[in-house]
Amino acid sequence: MNGWARYLPILDWGRRYGRETLSSDLLAAVIVTIMLVPQSLAYAMLAGLPPEVGLYASILPLVAYAIFGTSRTLAVGPVAVVSLMTASAIGEVAAQGTTDYLTAAVILALLSGGMLVLMGLFRLGFVANFLSHPVISGFITAAGLLIAAGQLRHVLGVNEGSGHLHEILGGLAGSMGAVNPFTLAIGGGVLAFLYFARIWLKPMLRAIGLGPRLADSFTKAGPVFAVAATIWIVSSLDLGAEGVSLVGAIPSGLPPIGLPSIDLEVVRVLIVPAFLISLVGFVESVSVAQTLASKRRQRIQPDQELIGLGAANIASGISAGYPVTGGFARSVVNFDAGAQTPAAGVFTAIGIALATLFLTPWLANLPQATLAATIIVAVLSLVDLKAIGRVWRYSKVDFSAMAVTIAGTLFMGVETGIVLGVVLSLLLHLYRSSRPHVAVVGQVQGTEHFRNIDRHAVETRPDLVTIRIDESLYFANSRFLEDKVAALVAERPEVRHVVLMCSAINAIDASALASLEEINHRLSDAGIKLHLSEVKGPVMDRLQRTDFLDHLSGRVFLSQYEAFCEAANGCTEDSGSVR
Amino acid sequence: MNGWARYLPILDWGRRYGRETLSSDLLAAVIVTIMLVPQSLAYAMLAGLPPEVGLYASILPLVAYAIFGTSRTLAVGPVAVVSLMTASAIGEVAAQGTTDYLTAAVILALLSGGMLVLMGLFRLGFVANFLSHPVISGFITAAGLLIAAGQLRHVLGVNEGSGHLHEILGGLAGSMGAVNPFTLAIGGGVLAFLYFARIWLKPMLRAIGLGPRLADSFTKAGPVFAVAATIWIVSSLDLGAEGVSLVGAIPSGLPPIGLPSIDLEVVRVLIVPAFLISLVGFVESVSVAQTLASKRRQRIQPDQELIGLGAANIASGISAGYPVTGGFARSVVNFDAGAQTPAAGVFTAIGIALATLFLTPWLANLPQATLAATIIVAVLSLVDLKAIGRVWRYSKVDFSAMAVTIAGTLFMGVETGIVLGVVLSLLLHLYRSSRPHVAVVGQVQGTEHFRNIDRHAVETRPDLVTIRIDESLYFANSRFLEDKVAALVAERPEVRHVVLMCSAINAIDASALASLEEINHRLSDAGIKLHLSEVKGPVMDRLQRTDFLDHLSGRVFLSQYEAFCEAANGCTEDSGSVR
Repeated sequence: MNGWARYLPILDWGRRYGRETLSSDLLAAVIVTIMLVPQSLAYAMLAGLPPEVGLYASILPLVAYAIFGTSRTLAVGPVAVVSLMTASAIGEVAAQGTTDYLTAAVILALLSGGMLVLMGLFRLGFVANFLSHPVISGFITAAGLLIAAGQLRHVLGVNEGSGHLHEILGGLAGSMGAVNPFTLAIGGGVLAFLYFARIWLKPMLRAIGLGPRLADSFTKAGPVFAVAATIWIVSSLDLGAEGVSLVGAIPSGLPPIGLPSIDLEVVRVLIVPAFLISLVGFVESVSVAQTLASKRRQRIQPDQELIGLGAANIASGISAGYPVTGGFARSVVNFDAGAQTPAAGVFTAIGIALATLFLTPWLANLPQATLAATIIVAVLSLVDLKAIGRVWRYSKVDFSAMAVTIAGTLFMGVETGIVLGVVLSLLLHLYRSSRPHVAVVGQVQGTEHFRNIDRHAVETRPDLVTIRIDESLYFANSRFLEDKVAALVAERPEVRHVVLMCSAINAIDASALASLEEINHRLSDAGIKLHLSEVKGPVMDRLQRTDFLDHLSGRVFLSQYEAFCEAANGCTEDSGSVR
Repeated sequence: MNGWARYLPILDWGRRYGRETLSSDLLAAVIVTIMLVPQSLAYAMLAGLPPEVGLYASILPLVAYAIFGTSRTLAVGPVAVVSLMTASAIGEVAAQGTTDYLTAAVILALLSGGMLVLMGLFRLGFVANFLSHPVISGFITAAGLLIAAGQLRHVLGVNEGSGHLHEILGGLAGSMGAVNPFTLAIGGGVLAFLYFARIWLKPMLRAIGLGPRLADSFTKAGPVFAVAATIWIVSSLDLGAEGVSLVGAIPSGLPPIGLPSIDLEVVRVLIVPAFLISLVGFVESVSVAQTLASKRRQRIQPDQELIGLGAANIASGISAGYPVTGGFARSVVNFDAGAQTPAAGVFTAIGIALATLFLTPWLANLPQATLAATIIVAVLSLVDLKAIGRVWRYSKVDFSAMAVTIAGTLFMGVETGIVLGVVLSLLLHLYRSSRPHVAVVGQVQGTEHFRNIDRHAVETRPDLVTIRIDESLYFANSRFLEDKVAALVAERPEVRHVVLMCSAINAIDASALASLEEINHRLSDAGIKLHLSEVKGPVMDRLQRTDFLDHLSGRVFLSQYEAFCEAANGCTEDSGSVR
């Protein structure tokens, strides 16, 4: 793909679009639409936004992604974790229920969209690597727990119980006297039904003869049944009068298109949250897209994905929505339902648009407890406690980054949690790579091989010490090498030659070059010559652009064997060594 | 060294202290004291502090370092770059000349000391690796230029010309009409004399028969001559009345010992600057100490150095001083003058204490222009413009971090400059290591060797692709591997086996493990088996603690040759491969 098609994947697949693909995409779109309506309402509630904002965020963003995205089957829209992060971010600048709160959500989507597009254009997708796997997986688990706990107040029908985990638990504990029995009956009933659907319904449907696909679709439509049933119950019994919180009147009609007036102070406060939302959303979305694409041996292009998700967020911003990204559950449904191209996303958008036009009057009597229950069931599948144990067993270092992320997210806030995790994993990485594996080596008798003197019976010479460095040299580990050489020389007073065996060094950055110069200089002051052996071609090319080799007190040997034999023997220039 | 001696190096060298060492140390102390008196006054002025604070910072800190430090010859005290950083930091919380400003300096020293000691106790010296060589060397050069420019106003006798570089230049340009000719004569004269001393005096003294050591000592005593001469001139001609700014009355007497009342808000603002001062001071000091130690084949212990410098700063804080660190010029003088042990530092401290008791009355008529001129000459030796060119030629990536540090320091402030440099070098490092070298390899005909298919004529099989990864796998590069494998498989529809050749992989962190699981899972979905070959022992041990090998769709082969021959041939279990 070249030219325009590089940045507009639609030009590639759109050209070859046919009737057969159309019918597959249409079917998938119908199924995803049915799933997405209750999800959109629920995640908007989670973000503290009115329900229609969730629907708005499920229309234009899908169209934008279809144009710019590279995954054939990714379904974008509001997702749980990003909704939680949105609530946390815009809660800093405005109070829920105000116009400023809505405007802040729009600004957040625009900021995040702009950042993603810029990162895509400048190919900065690698920045997402800052989020190591233990950090992202710990964060998602903690966010899932936090969201589920935060929804309990809606299931119980009480007012207290939001914020950090300890605040939620404290609030709930203090409100136990105020539980609304009708709300609890609805919320608890929906929870029980959804768990039943998840665990028992599918095998039962299979047992009575349904195919696996159909059984799965029925199961995934559970929330839709719950929504319909609880609306009917509430309307029939007039439970709104009994204090059951309802979604209330939703304005029907398509989203308004336009930009709000933008307050720069709000932008300043939202920049960091927008960046974190962009990273988390991108990592999650790319991982889903990658997984689905490889099932059909398709490819996604991560840098173009940034542009696709950025475009989706900008589209969300100009249509009164809030930050969106690719969702796992809905993308799997889209894929399983047979979606072939991003056109399925466009058809889904049309479906949601029709829902905002014609379905909204029916939703006024929807209990918030129903939405809360669907959220709880959805997010608890994000909680992966086993992963914590796996990481603990695999690596204590990785575990500590994960533990800090989880504790930070639960008790100090989503942004704090993720930032702490990232900073700690960077520090730990730097710590690990600041101590590269370094071995003093000697000659395996009768061979030209050299091995670690601590592990093998090898020959050494009193006047010469050879140090093999098993990693590329760069700023994080170059000072360690200085210390190491200084220590080795200090404990071997008879040494006159130090050989650095460079067979595993793929690169030497400017910091490491400075360290090598320092080492050479210091050894020289102590009457010791520094030699290099087995320097790789590209590394040697680069060293030759400096005056390091002119100042080097010793020589550069092609092989360690040569260095071992000749370094201390008068160092004649005709012995095949290179300067 | 074990037990107490590990944390109190004085127990080691103090025990063997003899008469001969004593006389060497005493001589060095006299010479360093003479050098340190004008430096202490000058750097205090640079930090915006009264001159006696510079003297106070040259007494107790030296004693503390002598007890806890590991370098035999490092001379600690106020230094130029740290003084500039101090002025910048405490200028944020109080105005020069107020008691709050003095208190802030003390708090900064205590904070920095506390951080250094903690870093030492927890062996966190590796954190200093964050400061890559291009960043620290760019920062020192920029700080040198900034300090020199900032002192010009004292040489010219004008009031404007402080702040960032553009503010300094603007201020000076606007004050050209207000230049004080007497001040300029003194300042210009001292500058000329010091440059003369540096460039001409030493060769001249050598020519008239002085030994190199003695000639050098005379040259380095230049500032002392300048101080004495200008005091005499100012006193004789009563130039104070002509508007020449003088140091003024310095309270004589030893520093007061005690702690100020500490305002937590001030502490909050100073935490980041204190951390940066600690890092910069530590890096500079360790580098000097390391260089001097290796000349005598001695060792320093970087983690204990943190404790030594931390103790020096705490001592400075409780004796009304300000942040200190090991200085380059004075340590070299101390070394060259023959100092044998840290006792030389204690004797120097006694010398400075005597100076504060008896010399201060003589210093009231010292012109600030003299001190400014000594600062300018001293800091311009820090400016290393050639290093910029060297880094540019060696690596554009390293150069960009250096350029950002220099520009940030000059035009946005010392803290901003260093933070920008550190963040950029981390980003660039992450970028570089996010793209490890990966090669598709094939068999060199008739051998068991495998080489890059792009560089060698090798044999491959259509149903099998082997990927050799030339670096350890961790969070920064694990997603790259996912993308790479996905791309290779997508463009080779006939592939049924993927072999990852792991001969260069020294470690796999939890993120990379998750990526390998993802890759295995995705390939499996596409009907492709994943195999590993040449996995190193420690890596294999760690993998065996997970269930990755149970889920692996293919096998683990000891050699790449085996993998190439057998991976696609039915995969019998009795062929020497390990699961």
